Amino acid sequence: MATLCRPSIAVPDNVLTMEETLELARTMHADHPQLGLALRLIENTGVRTRRIVQPIEETLRHPGFEARNRVYEAEAKRRVPPVVYRALDHAGLTVRDIDLIVYVSCTGFMMPSLTAWLINTLGFRSETRQLPIAQLGCAAGGAAINRADDFCRAYPEANALIVACEFCSLCYQPTDVGVGSLLSNGLFGDAVAAAVVRGQGGTGVRLERNGSHLVPDTEDWISYAVRGTGFHFLLDKRVPTTMKMLAPALRTLATAHDWEVSDLDFHIVHAGGPRILDDLCHFLDIPPEMFRYSRETLTERGNIASCVVFDALERLFAAGGADDSARGLIAGFGPGITAEIALGRWVGERSRAVVPGRRAQERAPVA
Amino acid sequence: MATLCRPSIAVPDNVLTMEETLELARTMHADHPQLGLALRLIENTGVRTRRIVQPIEETLRHPGFEARNRVYEAEAKRRVPPVVYRALDHAGLTVRDIDLIVYVSCTGFMMPSLTAWLINTLGFRSETRQLPIAQLGCAAGGAAINRADDFCRAYPEANALIVACEFCSLCYQPTDVGVGSLLSNGLFGDAVAAAVVRGQGGTGVRLERNGSHLVPDTEDWISYAVRGTGFHFLLDKRVPTTMKMLAPALRTLATAHDWEVSDLDFHIVHAGGPRILDDLCHFLDIPPEMFRYSRETLTERGNIASCVVFDALERLFAAGGADDSARGLIAGFGPGITAEIALGRWVGERSRAVVPGRRAQERAPVA
Repeated sequence: MATLCRPSIAVPDNVLTMEETLELARTMHADHPQLGLALRLIENTGVRTRRIVQPIEETLRHPGFEARNRVYEAEAKRRVPPVVYRALDHAGLTVRDIDLIVYVSCTGFMMPSLTAWLINTLGFRSETRQLPIAQLGCAAGGAAINRADDFCRAYPEANALIVACEFCSLCYQPTDVGVGSLLSNGLFGDAVAAAVVRGQGGTGVRLERNGSHLVPDTEDWISYAVRGTGFHFLLDKRVPTTMKMLAPALRTLATAHDWEVSDLDFHIVHAGGPRILDDLCHFLDIPPEMFRYSRETLTERGNIASCVVFDALERLFAAGGADDSARGLIAGFGPGITAEIALGRWVGERSRAVVPGRRAQERAPVA
Repeated sequence: MATLCRPSIAVPDNVLTMEETLELARTMHADHPQLGLALRLIENTGVRTRRIVQPIEETLRHPGFEARNRVYEAEAKRRVPPVVYRALDHAGLTVRDIDLIVYVSCTGFMMPSLTAWLINTLGFRSETRQLPIAQLGCAAGGAAINRADDFCRAYPEANALIVACEFCSLCYQPTDVGVGSLLSNGLFGDAVAAAVVRGQGGTGVRLERNGSHLVPDTEDWISYAVRGTGFHFLLDKRVPTTMKMLAPALRTLATAHDWEVSDLDFHIVHAGGPRILDDLCHFLDIPPEMFRYSRETLTERGNIASCVVFDALERLFAAGGADDSARGLIAGFGPGITAEIALGRWVGERSRAVVPGRRAQERAPVA
């Protein structure tokens, strides 16, 4: 079984506090008929700080989709390599050991995908499979883990690298002034993340089962309108109620694995907003502290889309991990509305069988 | 091992002949300094007819990225369901038997992906995994087969549905008048395709091995410039020479499987242009008639991007298929520059063990 190793995360230096966000909303939308509501919604997110790739003055300007996407590409090329190297270090592997790169990002678009550039620039093997996913939004973090898991099930000796790159601030649309948009403007942040799924060996979360669930007839609850100005994020006001429909899917998958979802040892879930975490506590009968890592990600970095699950998981690692064989759940939620769920057990340094770096040794000399 | 079953293809009613294409080029670009070259390049494609989703007058107008993408969505929703149902029929399965939908398309962008709409509208199970891939361009046909194969290796009882939806005419950019653009305007066509990869049973190509290859440092040879007007296809003049670099990758994969690439019984490859097929003959020492299905696709429908391999494979089926256990190769080529290659053996009606429709029986009552 494959193991999801310690992720690596990086956030930009530009900080945006909740106070600054509220002040921007007040000054920019002083005449907005629902300003009060928007301010309350932003305050309720609990997002204290976010990091963004450009200074706020730049962020608020819209230089056109083309220029925006050029910033996306340049920032991705600058910020992704360091997190990739760190994730490989965490996994005890090198670029030559990687068989698949899953690249998830919904905040910019490149063809060829950044995977081609990464292979060329960082020295991955030419045979490395590329799996770029742009259309699963915030659920893509979970999807990346699950497709990497599937790949290692197909090829048990293989290793997959996951890269998540989300510059949500590059999707800011000044002309979108609905309450949902004002809320989104106060919620999303930027980050890049990487993690390795090792087919053999490794410490972290040994992936035992995965599953997907689509909530029927909610396609338009979270969506992009694709326009000349780029991707316009549309958030339906019913989205915060989604966990009522998704909590049973989490329980069902756990039950199929003979686990009781309310009795797990750790939960790493997409923190799209505070209501998601509150409702999961309620519907799954789980105490709030079980979601503390997801809550910390939300509070300190905002909703960083597909990066959330990796940021939250990194916090679990930083806190010392879990007990050996502790059982846990990882879930991404996003447009569809889709949940991508994984179940796994913690594998610590001491418990894992020592598996020498087969590939690293075999492949290092390969040009 | 999984079996790639008979694909299903549909093309729009609007026909564009080579004569019409040449006449359009002559009238629209009468003063173009390289008009002669462009006309010769278009003639050399050998593309006699193409089908496009809108009448030519509409196609030549650019109503903006937003309106274009709306046409994409509407046409996809109209044209994809029939090919899905036919592909399921070919595979002897129903929507309830499908565990993964791989949706490949580079000519429009939707979030959520069409997969969510398909699941909701056609009645696929809520647990169906969604794998939308937008950034592998023409290589995505091969990539879809290979990722579906991987999924069935991971879950040998599973079935994957592949959908390819390419409306290349919706990426026509009137302001792009370089020779590469004029050539592209005469090369690409529209189509939708679907095919099932059955984990157990089925007739068609039993998938034995797959592999990927990226040609180093060719990222900018085939690419999209992302602009306010949409995706602008950029084709480098070195692209026709690509097979010199990719032919060895095809041979290497065959050799790893103890097959001799020049000695296979069938070849289903992406017909990006005539030079690709000519060069594969040359570099792999394969007679031209081995590529007749790919050539027919190119001649009758143009380069239909990720749909090409399915259209060419459908022609092999329509011609009666191959002998039992005949060995063949399927390959998609596209941006990166990436090749996605599969090796498999023909499994005919008589040779396959009769495997009853387990899933269809078990799952039919599931709501």
